[in-house]
Amino acid sequence: MSAQMGVRALGAELVARLSLAKVCEPLDRVVAPLAAEVGVVEAWDRVRRNAGGKFGATAARVEALDLDRELYAASRLGLRVLVPGDDAWPPGFDDLEYPPWCVWVRGDADVAALARRSVAVVGARSSTPYGTAVARQLAAELSGKRFVVVSGAAFGIDAAAHYGALAAAAPTIAVLASGADRAYPVSHADLIGEIARVGAVLSECPPGAAPLKQRFLARNRLIAAMTSGTVVVEAGLRSGSLNTVSHAESMARPVGAVPGPVTSAMSAGTNQLIRDARAVLVTDAAEVAELVGPMGEELVEPKRGPDRPEDELRGAARVVYDTLPRVRGCSVDRLVLSAGLAVGDVLAALGELEVRDLAERTATGWRRR
Amino acid sequence: MSAQMGVRALGAELVARLSLAKVCEPLDRVVAPLAAEVGVVEAWDRVRRNAGGKFGATAARVEALDLDRELYAASRLGLRVLVPGDDAWPPGFDDLEYPPWCVWVRGDADVAALARRSVAVVGARSSTPYGTAVARQLAAELSGKRFVVVSGAAFGIDAAAHYGALAAAAPTIAVLASGADRAYPVSHADLIGEIARVGAVLSECPPGAAPLKQRFLARNRLIAAMTSGTVVVEAGLRSGSLNTVSHAESMARPVGAVPGPVTSAMSAGTNQLIRDARAVLVTDAAEVAELVGPMGEELVEPKRGPDRPEDELRGAARVVYDTLPRVRGCSVDRLVLSAGLAVGDVLAALGELEVRDLAERTATGWRRR
Repeated sequence: MSAQMGVRALGAELVARLSLAKVCEPLDRVVAPLAAEVGVVEAWDRVRRNAGGKFGATAARVEALDLDRELYAASRLGLRVLVPGDDAWPPGFDDLEYPPWCVWVRGDADVAALARRSVAVVGARSSTPYGTAVARQLAAELSGKRFVVVSGAAFGIDAAAHYGALAAAAPTIAVLASGADRAYPVSHADLIGEIARVGAVLSECPPGAAPLKQRFLARNRLIAAMTSGTVVVEAGLRSGSLNTVSHAESMARPVGAVPGPVTSAMSAGTNQLIRDARAVLVTDAAEVAELVGPMGEELVEPKRGPDRPEDELRGAARVVYDTLPRVRGCSVDRLVLSAGLAVGDVLAALGELEVRDLAERTATGWRRR
Repeated sequence: MSAQMGVRALGAELVARLSLAKVCEPLDRVVAPLAAEVGVVEAWDRVRRNAGGKFGATAARVEALDLDRELYAASRLGLRVLVPGDDAWPPGFDDLEYPPWCVWVRGDADVAALARRSVAVVGARSSTPYGTAVARQLAAELSGKRFVVVSGAAFGIDAAAHYGALAAAAPTIAVLASGADRAYPVSHADLIGEIARVGAVLSECPPGAAPLKQRFLARNRLIAAMTSGTVVVEAGLRSGSLNTVSHAESMARPVGAVPGPVTSAMSAGTNQLIRDARAVLVTDAAEVAELVGPMGEELVEPKRGPDRPEDELRGAARVVYDTLPRVRGCSVDRLVLSAGLAVGDVLAALGELEVRDLAERTATGWRRR
């Protein structure tokens, strides 16, 4: 819908959704279950009439509601509103027990298209240089693999993730706990503006809404829901990002965590997620892609160290090579004793090692090359 | 047995074991399976006679064998020999497919008693300051929990583990790939001497034996076998300590690994062990004790962050607290609007918060305290 339309031109469902978003908190304990049961139009009607006196909590907000003014404000702020059924509505939201009434979007990108191949990269606000560097690198590399990085625009890991995506010239999505018009933290106004320019900034809270604790918790479920999986880069034992993990778990979305030093409080949460098998340990973008990508599409080979020439040696050649002195050469008799092999086997092994350029004969005898 | 006795006073089995240890490598591919099948006395008899020409590889060593000289040398070096059945023989060795023929021990400690409650702490030779510090701390704390730390006396993690135990004034065991009389690396002579003084240094290779690659691999199985579990603190992707892990796995001993930065090559091996679920992520001695200790004896509570006063808040009190401004107080009406609660609930919540010393009334209204 266009926010320029007046409220009288809107359908009943849209009016209900916009109104509920304005008068209820995202996860209102009374209204959210009610709407799931009777639908948003009926729920809004009961709230508006304070039916049975059950909705007194919202009375002050219902009285203050002015939908025309809201729509005008949103339009002036350049915000779109999305509701379920819209093409750009991220389908993952519909997996939530209580989907948002609607979301306000700053930025022109097709949010549903971006969300189709996306990963949440989240973590501690008070991140360390290690976590910040890893988040940025991970986000840049995931962007290179055409994954859209979704995060919360907060200090620390969130910002690093967005910066990494932006550095890779890729769209990224910020989901805010405040209104989508309102930069929080304020010092991230430029970052959030840039995210809106190349990707999208969205919120289920109406324009102007303040970033309250409960809204962060509700916001986290949107980040988990709209992405294919969540990666926590750094988290203390009480980090809010663990709340995002809980939401991802409850929707059976895969969760990855970046390990870190056991001496770092900012890795205590991620290490514990891994220890408790709530998250898969991930060390790079390839492993994240394998975890959250379409099944079987992004398989990674386990990492292995560099090959060495002596790796190919088998049997007697291996034993003789290991026995050979590095500096001062020794006799074949001595090698026979130290390797515990027959003379013929030692001579054959020395022949093979010489061909492979791994042994040489010197004035004092054989040694490694 | 006492190494002072001459060879003629020894039983046939002891002669066979000492002789096989001298002429065969620890895991000789022909003799080890043979001895498992026909017993050590018969195996040694066949090797000695080069029966069927099958044991030509050991012929030179059989010819050079002088058991009296060996026994005299061991005695002069202050080494004991242990064989299966001795009280001090670590029972874990008997779980091996091919137990050592015998082991030489430097130090007076009862190895079996020490091994009863022990843990292998191993890792990369080229450890980082992070790994070294963690290994040392872990070993000291495990020693404080009366676990005996077993390692290989190598550079890096091994040495740090031994130093940690020694710093805790606890016995520790070093298992060497060279003869037990021979300090390898040479610069660890003092460390190895100190380990022998308070604990034990042991080897299945006869005195004077050089530390060859194959002997390290064989040695690693002894470390895994004699302990209740193995912890890897740092390991590159090709670290020898991964070999110790394989042995622990094959004997169903628990394996723990300390996570580390994904940016550190020395944590790539440990992180991968955890990622592949071959090792449990461990962050401290309590978690190691839980992993390797007698079942159910050492259960640890999951780590959690410090409690905050507001953690106990529930319902409206929690919402109002989160909504309260931190600096400039605001009116109850304003709180009703922003919290989305009824006036009565807000007032009750403010009362609770004031009692808990979490809110206060100022000239401009209510704020957090």
